[in-house]
Parts: sequence; structure tokens; C-alpha cells
Amino acid sequence: MVIVMKLNSSPEQIENVNNRLQECGFQIQMIQGVKRIVIGAVGDRQSINTSTLETMPGVEKVLRIMKPYKMVCREVRGEDTVVQVGAAEFGGNRLAIVAGPCAVETKEQLYAAARAVQKAGATVLRGGTYKPRTSPYSFQGLEEEGLHLLAEAGAETGLATVTEVVDEESMRVAARYVDILQIGARNMQNFRLLRLAGQVKKPILLKRGLSATVEEWLMAAEYIVSSGNENVILCERGIRTFETSTRNTLDLSAVALVKTLTHLPVIVDPSHATGKRELVGAMSRAAVAAGADGLIIEVHPDPSMALCDGPQSLNPEEFDELMRRLHPLAVAVGREI
Amino acid sequence: MVIVMKLNSSPEQIENVNNRLQECGFQIQMIQGVKRIVIGAVGDRQSINTSTLETMPGVEKVLRIMKPYKMVCREVRGEDTVVQVGAAEFGGNRLAIVAGPCAVETKEQLYAAARAVQKAGATVLRGGTYKPRTSPYSFQGLEEEGLHLLAEAGAETGLATVTEVVDEESMRVAARYVDILQIGARNMQNFRLLRLAGQVKKPILLKRGLSATVEEWLMAAEYIVSSGNENVILCERGIRTFETSTRNTLDLSAVALVKTLTHLPVIVDPSHATGKRELVGAMSRAAVAAGADGLIIEVHPDPSMALCDGPQSLNPEEFDELMRRLHPLAVAVGREI
Amino acid sequence: MVIVMKLNSSPEQIENVNNRLQECGFQIQMIQGVKRIVIGAVGDRQSINTSTLETMPGVEKVLRIMKPYKMVCREVRGEDTVVQVGAAEFGGNRLAIVAGPCAVETKEQLYAAARAVQKAGATVLRGGTYKPRTSPYSFQGLEEEGLHLLAEAGAETGLATVTEVVDEESMRVAARYVDILQIGARNMQNFRLLRLAGQVKKPILLKRGLSATVEEWLMAAEYIVSSGNENVILCERGIRTFETSTRNTLDLSAVALVKTLTHLPVIVDPSHATGKRELVGAMSRAAVAAGADGLIIEVHPDPSMALCDGPQSLNPEEFDELMRRLHPLAVAVGREI
Amino acid sequence: MVIVMKLNSSPEQIENVNNRLQECGFQIQMIQGVKRIVIGAVGDRQSINTSTLETMPGVEKVLRIMKPYKMVCREVRGEDTVVQVGAAEFGGNRLAIVAGPCAVETKEQLYAAARAVQKAGATVLRGGTYKPRTSPYSFQGLEEEGLHLLAEAGAETGLATVTEVVDEESMRVAARYVDILQIGARNMQNFRLLRLAGQVKKPILLKRGLSATVEEWLMAAEYIVSSGNENVILCERGIRTFETSTRNTLDLSAVALVKTLTHLPVIVDPSHATGKRELVGAMSRAAVAAGADGLIIEVHPDPSMALCDGPQSLNPEEFDELMRRLHPLAVAVGREI
Repeated sequence: MVIVMKLNSSPEQIENVNNRLQECGFQIQMIQGVKRIVIGAVGDRQSINTSTLETMPGVEKVLRIMKPYKMVCREVRGEDTVVQVGAAEFGGNRLAIVAGPCAVETKEQLYAAARAVQKAGATVLRGGTYKPRTSPYSFQGLEEEGLHLLAEAGAETGLATVTEVVDEESMRVAARYVDILQIGARNMQNFRLLRLAGQVKKPILLKRGLSATVEEWLMAAEYIVSSGNENVILCERGIRTFETSTRNTLDLSAVALVKTLTHLPVIVDPSHATGKRELVGAMSRAAVAAGADGLIIEVHPDPSMALCDGPQSLNPEEFDELMRRLHPLAVAVGREI
Repeated sequence: MVIVMKLNSSPEQIENVNNRLQECGFQIQMIQGVKRIVIGAVGDRQSINTSTLETMPGVEKVLRIMKPYKMVCREVRGEDTVVQVGAAEFGGNRLAIVAGPCAVETKEQLYAAARAVQKAGATVLRGGTYKPRTSPYSFQGLEEEGLHLLAEAGAETGLATVTEVVDEESMRVAARYVDILQIGARNMQNFRLLRLAGQVKKPILLKRGLSATVEEWLMAAEYIVSSGNENVILCERGIRTFETSTRNTLDLSAVALVKTLTHLPVIVDPSHATGKRELVGAMSRAAVAAGADGLIIEVHPDPSMALCDGPQSLNPEEFDELMRRLHPLAVAVGREI
Repeated sequence: MVIVMKLNSSPEQIENVNNRLQECGFQIQMIQGVKRIVIGAVGDRQSINTSTLETMPGVEKVLRIMKPYKMVCREVRGEDTVVQVGAAEFGGNRLAIVAGPCAVETKEQLYAAARAVQKAGATVLRGGTYKPRTSPYSFQGLEEEGLHLLAEAGAETGLATVTEVVDEESMRVAARYVDILQIGARNMQNFRLLRLAGQVKKPILLKRGLSATVEEWLMAAEYIVSSGNENVILCERGIRTFETSTRNTLDLSAVALVKTLTHLPVIVDPSHATGKRELVGAMSRAAVAAGADGLIIEVHPDPSMALCDGPQSLNPEEFDELMRRLHPLAVAVGREI
Repeated sequence: MVIVMKLNSSPEQIENVNNRLQECGFQIQMIQGVKRIVIGAVGDRQSINTSTLETMPGVEKVLRIMKPYKMVCREVRGEDTVVQVGAAEFGGNRLAIVAGPCAVETKEQLYAAARAVQKAGATVLRGGTYKPRTSPYSFQGLEEEGLHLLAEAGAETGLATVTEVVDEESMRVAARYVDILQIGARNMQNFRLLRLAGQVKKPILLKRGLSATVEEWLMAAEYIVSSGNENVILCERGIRTFETSTRNTLDLSAVALVKTLTHLPVIVDPSHATGKRELVGAMSRAAVAAGADGLIIEVHPDPSMALCDGPQSLNPEEFDELMRRLHPLAVAVGREI
């Protein structure tokens, strides 16, 4: 930690800061700059609330040197975490393809989607059953009835399953039915839910928040891992920016960057990121080229009748074509599919 | 609702869209533009998932005409909602001043803060007891023990009290101790929590999410009101933008705008918005000048020892000065304080 | 400057960095952290391209301690710069009110606006003559003919005048007619124009770019001042964020912050910031409460017939009311108007 | 164009709007909604300043149906524009690879870079000679001397050349030396420069502004094309968002989207977008997978000695490896390189 003192800080102010640091167990080293004093403090940053240092008279700012996340950090653990779920592998050489409808609507709809995505090469079936919707007047999901359908459809097609959970109760119920629990973008900093996710015995798919920095996203993963669950799969799904011509802005640089910062697997959701069916194929290919470990894609037997997110859902033929075009690309970057 | 067809849409595609609209009970009217067809559809938008229209062949985009929120809309209810809590009034002519520490730490700290803010003119005491922290290694709050202290300090000073709740359990417990329940920025789209807030018998202080649009913020309020609780106080606390010289970007235009869109009261949190103690005074004055119905300000007896958010907390002398300087300004814009 | 070495940097890499720094005249000081080496480097940062240090093997990042701007920095010059233009004063105790139409359209239009704003208390007349328009098919301004009208209207009403310049030629021509030259948001980092502005003998009104950080904005001012022109007036006019319910997001915290960072005057443009006539009054009051040294407001005799920016223009009656309501507020914050 | 009237608009207000529209030559059609009137107006939008309609009493908002760009629009011209420069082709099946140093520094540096990128397969040499720098104290470029070196290096290696121009003079001079003129991100809305670019007889490389929407970017291209120059190459180079872990946020969805909106070629600059050398390879591959027509990449013989942008520059070996890994990927998406 480096403490930059103000231009006109007094010797007494500098001493006060030094004393405070030493009380907290830091070793200090003074750097006399051209115009100001800078204090290097070596020790355990957990032993002090660094932000309060910034309130001490004479202090201009505090620069933190160490990354705030530890257990998810690649510097701590070099080898990739691989999360194995049924036939799917997240973080290994083979790409994990998750696909299915935004929401479980009916048995017919779900089975049609499940069979189509299985046939085209997906290994995990997605389906929303507890839906976080912007409007209280929109369809909110079939809840446990949907989970039941999802588990059946998974069993029949041999696909692993994933669904979003939104609170303690939905997490408890869903953990009985599905293989992977998803924490959605809007709950990425629902810290209670993150702690509970650390105590559950299922892998967690952790979506990046709409306006979460890479560091905050990794800190959310740190919450889960430090609470006891190492099987975390990160998912980039677009961030909110000034650009409105796509639903969100897919941040593929973050995918390549995160692979250097953490050992956890990272997949990409091009459906929510773009909000436009016609861009999903190109962004799927770009994601794999950027180094993503997999994809999660919305597929609906009839997008024009979908109860949610129709405009970004592929129909079975479109998904089949996407998978066929993805194949040579995966090979070109040294991955299997 | 207006449906814009593509340049080269076929008569058959246009007919399909019309049929779909009519099946859902819409009356339609065709506008033959210079180059393309535009369809006006009159009816109840709830009766169709409008986004699926965009997936129909030949459709370019769908423009929505009506606002998606209803119960919180000023067009529906013209007169201001006034939320009365103890001596405080949110939305009336008198400004509501909420103040106190970021987190309840000890009895001494809380009582010192409570006495100071009461003396300076605040009418509501804030104090965090369930703290949503970015890092799992940071202080997480005293929970029920903190609520107990908060209730006592409120009773002793005659201040109403407010604390943040983060899940069903904290909401249930906090409702027994405090007068106002706060839903924080990171939970603004925790729709489960919003529904629960609609069923509780206490006013809700609803902070705007870091990257929530004004419309999404009002939709979050709509969740609460449509679930049965009309006593919602909105709070602007800064949005996330590219600018990092302040912690967030305080969006005062949104305050003025929201006062025209809804009948609910709106207050401003200059402490979280700026993250800098030296800007809190100026932004408090600006907020009141912009039309805010009140302020929520972090005050700590000794900010340099605070367990959280020290750099943005005022000490009692600074808060006292803020209140004194706010007084003539409130008068100048026709408000009492 | 502080250089943070990577966890696993080798002694040789550390020595290479030290050698490079010493060659450039820096004095170095090593801080042995718990896990990594940090190097403090004291000297003239101009003597090295610091970013290249980040490319040296073993270096993780370089933290800059000093602010990159010098001449505009309040640490360098404590007292406020006051720019005097005719009866207007920017940066003194009296607020400077600039008003007038977005674009000079006709003599009648301009004179009507000039008389109205002068009568209501403005001291500077604005009027665009070289208009930067998003579309090549929109009205582009009357150019020199407009400047001629502007100078006449100013002379007749006793108002100083300001117009936007967009390149060397328009700057050269406009300098002959008007009192203040404006550099618009889209040209804030047109560094050629900034250097030219440094050589002209007129005050410069420098608008903040749509996505410029506070530091970049001050660096743009540094370009002008370091090229020889000390009379720079900063103008906050809203930044681009995800929020679209207002045209831009007015960043009043930046105004309060900038007043602590620089000695230059800062005014606010609530018209462009909000894009909505009905918010201009509230944001004018908020700007003054936040500490702005003045305002620039669009006023048109008949906004519904304006050739540009009608929706955000006030008519004379609305501007008159704005000025009347601003008066007690200015007094309340210790300013004259 | 669709005009939405307010809930409580009066018959007289509606008639006034209709009259205004009819005076401007529009045919109108009224839609009586459940609660409000919506007016469809068919005609030439150029004949009215639509935004002024929004200022008319009773009008809530105006929705524009048509895209504001015409000549660059794919609906107007279906076939791809291919810009041929020397051996390079922008917009054809073969990818165009532009590479070279951020700034031309010395003959040795430039020649070393030119030979290296030519050998690895680039067909265009980049090199900055008029540098827009955030700080007035940074290296500003060799100007004409640099252009001379660039032209020589291009001639010797058989590479076409590109450099950035920043004003009328640099454009005039550079047009004598290089094959492609670049308009940088900070000048994307320097409309004077865009018009001049329309009159020059060289292809223009138009970078997207830091905070430019896709529509604004295409409107900037429209300025150039409508001024007479059809040879415009678009370049996505990252947008400014809240995320600071990369220099900018590379918006590859915009690349895929823009290919559907315009017939112009689009390339990607992964160097400026990420600001990090270690991400350039992955983002180059992702860009090609997303459908980009080419890449522009910074290569320096010794990045640690570069006068600008060292951290994002590749050395020759890194660029060579990038090209080798790009090859199978290009083939996988049906492109040549």
C-alpha cells in the first residue's frame, strides 16, 4: 500500500499517519519526492480499513498494490479449474455449450427445445423457472413446476441442466432438481445469495452484473469460493454502456483478460449481450476466438411465440447452423466441441 | 404501439402481423409511408408480449407509446405522495434530513452520531446493520445487535430510524426495530425483495441502482406499490459512468425529471454519490435546489476510525455547518427545513 | 512515480528497471513488500515516457503520483482566475449569465433574443454561427453573416458576445467579431484547435467533451494556457452515460470538484445537458448551488420555430422567470447576479 | 414519423400540429389510442426540423421511423464497397492487415517495423506523424519529416501507407505522401475535417469516436460520402465505458451490426481498444470471427523504447505469431489473409 501525502502536509500529519500504520502492524518506508512525501506501507491490508487512511489530515490518496481477491486469483493457483457436469466440461479443452429457452413455458416447448439443442451438440439445457423481470406485470416463471419439467427433459435427453435462482428458497428448491445453479446479472452483488451459493453442493454459473467491473465480478466469485464452493463458472453477458443499438455491449476483452487473472472457467452469453438473434452467431464465434470456455445460447422452438426474450432466441434450425459453423472455428483455435 | 415494417416486407408478412395483433384484441391502422408500412396498434399492451412481435418476419422494430409503469405514474395520480415518519415528512414542503453513520459499530459511536445529527436538525437516523460489502473480508455489520442499538438511539433522541435490508430474513427482523426499511442500490432489481417490501407495513427507501435507468427505477417502485405498499421514497445516489474522479456520478437531472414523472417523494444521497467528504456540502445544496424532497447524509463521530465509508463521512461539526448553510438555500427555493 | 513489480519478477528484471530509471535521472528507493517489490522513483516525469516502463519484463503496473496538469492546477496558483468580458465577470463573486439562441438564424430572431435576455439580466449573448451538426443535411449556420449580426446585436444591447469556432478559419474570422470564442464538446480534444486558441487574444469558453474525464478536460485547458492564453472559462454541459431519459447527464459533482482542482472559472450549460426545456430552471438553480460561476442558457423568441435545439430552448418569458427565481438562490449561497 | 400527443392534449393543440405538418408537405393520419392521440406523418423529414415539433404544446414525443443516413445505408446499396489500396483490399474476401508503430520516430525504427510487418503478411504500413496527445508536454509527432520517411518505407517494402490527419493543413500535406488518410477517434465529429475528407482523392480510415453511437459513426461516414468520397473504411477501436481494466471496451457486436447496416468495410483496432499487448492476439482473432474485414495493429521494433503507446505495441516476433495463429481462423470463417 502506498500513501501519497498532500503537497503541504505537515511533519505532524505525516507522523500521525505513520503511527496509525505502525499500530496496525505495517512496516513503513518514506519516499521523499520532488514535492511531496509518499509512504510505502508493507503488511496485511486486512488489518486496516484502508479507506479511512484517506480521511486523515494531510493524506491525498491511498494506492492499493495487491489485488483484493485471493482464492480465485491465478497467482495463487496456476492451473485451470475444470468444472465437470454430466457430459459437459467447463474450463477444459472441450467447449461447453449450454442452450435452451429463456423460460420454461410448457412441456411441449421445453422438450422440443431440449431435443433440438441436444441433437445439435449442446451438453447442458438451460431454462428459466424463477424469472427476474423488469415489470411486475410480465410472466414470472413456472417455479417448481418448471423445475420438474426441466429435470425430466434433462433426464430424457441426457443433458445436464441449469436454471437461475433468485433467493434462498428458490436456491434450496432448485438444488434438488438441476445440476447447475445460475446467479443472474442483477443478483451478482446480492451478497447473501453469494454466501448461500458457497454452501450449496452444486456448481454455480455466475453472470457478470450489468455495470460490474472485472474486479467486482471476481470479488463476487471470491464470496462463493471463500464460503466453500470451488465450482464457479463465470459468464460474460454484456455490460451497460451508452450504446443502445445492441441490448448490452458484449465485453470480450474482459473474457481474455479474466482468463489471465483467474483459474476459473469463463463462458459467454451472446443472446442477452446483443438482444438480437441475427448477431448471436457472429458473437458466438468471436467469443470462442477470444478464448471463452463455452457458450450459453437461447433457443426456442418458436421464438415469435416465446413468453420472454423472443427477439434474441434462435429457432432450432438457426442453432443447428450456429453449431455447424462453430465447429471449424473451435478447431482453428485448438479447442474441441 | 407502433410496428415499423422493413423496407422490403411482403404483403403476406404484413398480413401475418395484423392477424396476430387482431387475435390479441388490438385495433389496427395502417400508415403507408414513402417507403415502408407502419402499423398503429391500439389496445392493451399487457395482452401481448410485444418483444415477440419483433421476431416476426418483415418487422423492423416495435415502438412503445405508453409508459410501462402505472401506479407510480403522475398521470394516474396527480397529487404528491407524502410519507410521514415520526417528525419527518418525505414529499411535503419541509425537507426530510436523514443522517448517521454508514454502519452501526458501537453504542458509543451510534449515540454520539445520533445526538449530533439530532442537534443539527436531522429528523431520521440512519445506520447500517446488514452491510452489503464488495469484499467478503470486510466488516459485514452487527445485524440484530445493531438494530437493537439503532432503535434505542432513535428512541432516546426522538429520531425516526432507517436501515438497509438485504433479504427476507433481515427484512423481517428489521421491520420489528426500525421505522423505514431501505433497499440498496445493488438490490434495486432484486425483484423478490421488492415484492416482500410491498407486503411489509413500513415505508421503503428505494435507492436507484448503479446502472438503472429512470424507467427501471420507477418500475422497481411499481413492484413495491403494486404489491401493496404505497409508502415508497425514492433515493438518487449516483450512477456508474466512465468518470472516476468521483465515486459515482450524481444525476440531479434525474431528480428533477422524476418529480415530473411520479408522485412519489425523491431524496438524494450526496455521500455515496461523490465518495468525497469535501463535496457533500455543495451537492446537498445542489440537490435541494434541483427539487429534492430531502437528503441522506453519512455522519460519523470520527470518520478516520469508521469501519466503512470514512472518506465520505462528515464529522459532527461538518454536518452542523452543512445544515446551517442549507437553511437559507431551502428558504430560497420555497422549502422549510 | 511508483513501479509495482510482478509477483515472480526476477532480480535481473528489477535491476533493469532500476537502471532505466536512473539513466533518466530518477532517484530510486526499493520497498520490499510481503510478496513483491515496489520501486519508488523520484524525479521529473517528463524525462521518461512512463507508459513504456509498463512494457519492461517483470513490471506489473506504474502508478503516477503527480497530477499531469500544471499551469491550470490550483496547487500552483491558489487565487481564482477572473475573466472579465464587458460587464460580465467569470470567476468573481458575481455570476456570469450567458444566454441566446442555439443558432443565429435571422436579424429579427437574434435581436428579439438579445433584447429579451439583456432585459432579464444576462450580460453575454450567445449565438451559433458555425454549427457542428450530427447530420450533414441539417442547418450548418450562417457563418460570417451570422457573426456580423451577432456583433451588431451585442453592440446595440450592450451585451458581450460568444460563438463557437470549429477550425482555424472560423477562429480567425470569429475573433474579429466576438468577445469570447467557444470550443465545443466535440472539439475538446481537437488539439490543433486548442493550440490555436492559446495564441488568440480572446477568452476561450472550453466545453467539456461528452466522454471526457475531469483530468482530460483540465489537460485540454492546459493546452490553451501553456500556449499563451490564460483566459479560459470551463463549461460543464453534461456527459454521455447509459441514461437516455435526459439528453446527457449533467455532472454537477464535477463542477464542485473542479473548483478545488483548478483556479479557472467554471460555468454550466443546463440546456444541452438536459435537452429538456422543463428541466433547465431546476438545473440552473442546482448549478449555482453547486458552486458554478455562471450559466449558459439557450433562449429563442419562438422555440417551436427554431432551426436547432428547439426542445431545450426557453422562450423569453421562461427565461425571465428563471432569472427571477435564480436571484434569491444566488443570494443564499453568497453570490451576486 | 410518428408524433405522440400528451394524455390531456386539447383538440386545438392537435390541430395545430396537424397544420404545421401539412404546411411542410406531410400527409397525416390520426390514430386514436385507448388514452391518447398518435399522429402518423408521411413525407420528407428533411423538410422540417423534427425536434421543434417536440416543443409544440400538447406534444409528448416524436418517434423517427427512417434511418438518418442514406448514402452509406445498406438498404440503399446492397453490395459491399471494396476499397482497393495497393495490395490491400478492404471489404473483399481477403482480410486487410494494417500494422506499424504508433508514431514514426526514426528511420531505423520505421524501417525495422515496416520490414517486420511486411514479412509477417501485412499489406499496409501505419505510422503516426501528427499525433493527437492528451498532454501538451508529450511527443507530438515528426509531421512532414515523418511523412517522408513513411512514404519511403512504404515504397521500399511494397506496403501501402496510412497516417492520421488532424486538420486541413495536415490533410493537405499527408495526401501528397500516403495512400490512406485516417481520421482519429477524437476527430470523428470534427465535421469540418469530415467535409474536407470528402473532397480529397484518397481513401479515408474513419475511427469510431470514444463515445460515438453506431448511428453517429455512420452519420460521420455520411458526411464524407455525401461530400464526394465513397472510399470510407470504418474502424472500431473501443468505446469508453465504466470498465477501466482495459483501456477501452472493444465493441465487437457493433462490428457485426454495422456490417448489416452499411455497405462500407469495417476493420478493428485491438491495440487501442485493449491498451494491453497480451490481449491483442485474442482480440484480433475475435474481431475476424465477428466478421471484421481487417485489422490495424501497433507493432514496434522495441516497445519498451516507444515514444508512445508502448504497452499496447507488439514486437516483431509477437506480431509474427499473431499472424500465424490468425491464418487458420480466417480460413475457418471463410476468409483469406
